[in-house]
Amino acid sequence: MESAPRQGDEGAPDAWIEFEPDVRDGLQGIEAGDELVLLSWLDCADRDVLVVHPRGDTSRPPAGVFTTRSHHRPNPIGLHRVEVLSFDGPRMKVDNLEALDGTPIIDVKPVLSAEISER
Amino acid sequence: MESAPRQGDEGAPDAWIEFEPDVRDGLQGIEAGDELVLLSWLDCADRDVLVVHPRGDTSRPPAGVFTTRSHHRPNPIGLHRVEVLSFDGPRMKVDNLEALDGTPIIDVKPVLSAEISER
Repeated sequence: MESAPRQGDEGAPDAWIEFEPDVRDGLQGIEAGDELVLLSWLDCADRDVLVVHPRGDTSRPPAGVFTTRSHHRPNPIGLHRVEVLSFDGPRMKVDNLEALDGTPIIDVKPVLSAEISER
Repeated sequence: MESAPRQGDEGAPDAWIEFEPDVRDGLQGIEAGDELVLLSWLDCADRDVLVVHPRGDTSRPPAGVFTTRSHHRPNPIGLHRVEVLSFDGPRMKVDNLEALDGTPIIDVKPVLSAEISER
């Protein structure tokens, strides 16, 4: 995981997401420009890790994984706030997605209006 | 699910979360006052639903579940932004948690500083 990407707020690439046929109806109404929260399953993570050096920096004291966004955690679910750029059939292009290629996306949610208004 | 709670931004009660012994080390460093994102597994959800009336309002047109925060979705994971109020041994008290009693909490994450600064 040395080359694993960092948190989305540090700048991340565009990515294509391909949806399985059996969930595509759930995308009805999503349009380019929408802001979404994607949940990923970080399948390269070590699920036995409970304490890490934050961001892999061994000069920082160890901390519980629940105080960090480390991929290594008992249930390795990633949160990614993205904007929808375009669609191509069953594929959706988004910006700012920090995830290794092939990482499963397990849920898609809208950003709540209250969260937007907090900005 | 008629009595299921609504989204957290609409006001929600305090709640106690009890952690299993085998993950408690991951909590090291969490303190009262910290803002966290809790991920829950909404085990009462209907995972076959792909289209809903937003917020159960049948006067609104049906929409894909991925455009809503409906509990009913293929992978029924809830996101809850909370503040830590106190600890009592393995139990953590948080505010503003909209979830049915007994709902499993599957991950705990810090709110990223960039998200805070966006407010």
